[in-house]
Amino acid sequence: MNGSANNHVDFTTVKNSRILSIQSHVAFGYVGGKAAVFPLQCLGYDVDAVNTVNFSNHAGYGRFGGSKTTADELSAMFESMEQNGLLLPSRLLTGYIPEAKALTAVSELATKLKRDSPDIIYLLDPVIGDSGRMYVSSDVVPVYRSMLPLASVITPNWFEVEVLTGVELHDLPSLQRALRILHQDYHVPHVVISSIPLKQWLLDVLPPNIKPSPSATEDSEFLLCISSSADGNGSQNLSTVHARSVPLIPGYFSGVGDLFSALLLGHFHPKQDPPSPHDTTLSYAASSALTKTHSILQITHEYALLLPEDERTPTDEEKDKAEPVRKFRRMRGRELRLIQGQDILRSTAIDELKQMKPWVDFWSTTA
Amino acid sequence: MNGSANNHVDFTTVKNSRILSIQSHVAFGYVGGKAAVFPLQCLGYDVDAVNTVNFSNHAGYGRFGGSKTTADELSAMFESMEQNGLLLPSRLLTGYIPEAKALTAVSELATKLKRDSPDIIYLLDPVIGDSGRMYVSSDVVPVYRSMLPLASVITPNWFEVEVLTGVELHDLPSLQRALRILHQDYHVPHVVISSIPLKQWLLDVLPPNIKPSPSATEDSEFLLCISSSADGNGSQNLSTVHARSVPLIPGYFSGVGDLFSALLLGHFHPKQDPPSPHDTTLSYAASSALTKTHSILQITHEYALLLPEDERTPTDEEKDKAEPVRKFRRMRGRELRLIQGQDILRSTAIDELKQMKPWVDFWSTTA
Repeated sequence: MNGSANNHVDFTTVKNSRILSIQSHVAFGYVGGKAAVFPLQCLGYDVDAVNTVNFSNHAGYGRFGGSKTTADELSAMFESMEQNGLLLPSRLLTGYIPEAKALTAVSELATKLKRDSPDIIYLLDPVIGDSGRMYVSSDVVPVYRSMLPLASVITPNWFEVEVLTGVELHDLPSLQRALRILHQDYHVPHVVISSIPLKQWLLDVLPPNIKPSPSATEDSEFLLCISSSADGNGSQNLSTVHARSVPLIPGYFSGVGDLFSALLLGHFHPKQDPPSPHDTTLSYAASSALTKTHSILQITHEYALLLPEDERTPTDEEKDKAEPVRKFRRMRGRELRLIQGQDILRSTAIDELKQMKPWVDFWSTTA
Repeated sequence: MNGSANNHVDFTTVKNSRILSIQSHVAFGYVGGKAAVFPLQCLGYDVDAVNTVNFSNHAGYGRFGGSKTTADELSAMFESMEQNGLLLPSRLLTGYIPEAKALTAVSELATKLKRDSPDIIYLLDPVIGDSGRMYVSSDVVPVYRSMLPLASVITPNWFEVEVLTGVELHDLPSLQRALRILHQDYHVPHVVISSIPLKQWLLDVLPPNIKPSPSATEDSEFLLCISSSADGNGSQNLSTVHARSVPLIPGYFSGVGDLFSALLLGHFHPKQDPPSPHDTTLSYAASSALTKTHSILQITHEYALLLPEDERTPTDEEKDKAEPVRKFRRMRGRELRLIQGQDILRSTAIDELKQMKPWVDFWSTTA
C-alpha cells in the first residue's frame, strides 16, 4: 500500500457525507467507536458519534469503570438532534449496544431515518458474540432480528449468523440456508460474513480461485471472508457471492470487527460501478476493508513483537491468573495501531488489494 | 499552507506519545473533545479520551440531550485505568468540566499523574466562560485556582484571566499584574491568553512589530494572542512575552478555543529548541496552533458563505426568536470543518506561519 501520492481524501465521493455512528466508547484503546470513528474521519466523513457505553477500556482487560448509556438518554439525544435539525446522516453505522431497551431506542431511530430517507445506507453490525460465546444480553437477539430488514449491509461473524438464523454452519447447504434466510426472510440486500475459520468442510467446497494452497494451510490457519449481494445482479441466483481466505495473525486483537465494518461502510459506494465486472459494489468495498484491516493488524502484530516477551505471548491463562498485570500488559500491546497506520486508513487507491474472488457456482453446488 | 509533501506525521517527535484528554463529548459537531481529539490523532498522538459530558450537540443550539458524567463515574474510570496499567499519558489535556465535584476528581488525577511523572506536560484550559459570561458553575473557580500549579501551560481567554486572577484587564499594568499572578503566585510556567479584543488601550501599548497597520484596523476588528514563558529565558524579566494580532472572522464559531488548545499542546515540544532564537518553545507552538486554527476558521467561513442566506447571517436575535429553526441552521453551517481541513491539521511544516512576535519591552514599559 502506498503512503504518498494516493493518500488524499477523495472528497468527490464523500463530499458532505455524514455518518451517524452508534456504538461503544472506551477512553483507552481501540474498540467500538474508537476503532471506527477515526478511520472514517480519515476517509473524509463527518461522523456524528453517539456512545452506547462510556468505559475506561474494553472488557478484555478484565476490569473496567464507567457507565452504560440508558435507553432514555439515547432517546433524549436522538430527539434533541431531530428537533435541532441535526439528524442528517446519509449513512448509519450501529455496533455494540449491549441491552435490549437501548437497542430498541436505536431501532426506533433507524426506522425513522429509513422512513425519512429511504436511500440511507445502513450498516448494521449485529454485535452479539464470538466463537460460541455471547457478550450481550440474550434479549437483544429478537430485537436485532426485527432490525435486519432496515439494514443495507450486515456484518455478522459466523457465530452471529448462527444465532440470528438458527442455522448451525457445518456444510455448504447450511451456509446456503443461512444466507437464504438473511436475504429472503429478512430482506437484507448485502451480507458480509467477516470471518469463518477455514475448517475442512469449508476447504472441501471452496472453488480453486479462493482456496489457499495446501502448503499454505499447513503453515498457518486461515479465515474466510464471504460477501453476498442480493440486489440487481441480473442472474437467476439468489445473490452474487465472493470470498477470500486470509491467514490468521496469531494472538487476540480487540476491535478488528469494528474497524472492518467501519471501513466496509466507508468504501461502500452503491452509486458507483465497481472497477471490474467481476466485482460487486459490496465485494469491492469488502476487498478494500479487508486489505486495510489486514495492514493495520500487520503493523500491530509487528509492534507487539518488539515488546518484552511477557507482553507478546498470545495467551497463557494460568500465568495470567497468577499475575494479572501480565494480562494487562499483553492486551495493551495488542491495541490496534490506528494512529500510526493512518496513512493506510486514508489511502483511496490501494496498491495490493486483497481482492474478494467470485464464488461462481456457490448456489449451484450441492453437497 | 501546503497540503502535499509536508503532510506526513512526524513520528520521530510524537513516537508513542499518549495524550489523556478529559473534556466534553457531543455527538454532532465539533466542540470539546470533538474539536481536540481528531486534530491530535492527525498529528500522530494516541489520545485516551475521557468524556465529561455526553450530549447530542453543543449548547449554542439551545436544546441538547444526554447526560453529564458524575464525579464518581470519572473516578471509577481513572481507577480502572490505573489498576489495568493504562494511565500512561506523557501529556494531559483538560477542558470543559462543568461541575466542581467532577473537576475535583480530575484535579486528584492530575495531582497523581504529576507526582508519578514530574515531566508530564499538562495543558490546562480553564474553561469558565467568555465575554463576561460564565458557562460553568461558579464553584469550579476555586478548584481551577488550586489546579494551576500543576499545569505546564494554561490557555485562558481574557475573561478567564480576569476571573482567575481577580484583575480586570484595562491597561498594560493590569495585564502585567495578571501575568505576574499566574507565573509567580500560581507557578504556571507557560501562559497563552488565546484572544483579547484589540481595544484602544491595547493598541496604544503594542510595539510596532505587533501592531496591525492603521488601515487594517479600520477595515476589520482584531484579536490579540499573547504567550508568556517564564522558564529558563535567562533574562531578568519575569517572562518572555510574544504576541500576534489576527483579524476577527465575523460570526460566532464554537470549539475554536478547544481546537487551539489541542493544537498548542500537540505542537509544544519543550525538549526541542525552537527554530529561531527569537522564539520560545511556547511562542513557536502558539504560532503553529494559531496558523492552523485560523486556516480551519477560514475554510469554515468560506463554507458558511456558500450556504443559503438564512444560514450564514452572523446573528439576528429577533428573527431567531420568531423562527428557531433559523438559528439551528446557522449554527450548523458554522461547525468547524475539521474533517475537510485534515491536511491542514496534519501538516508539520507550515508554509506561511502566523508568527508570534517578541514583545521585547513588555515588562519594562510602564503606562
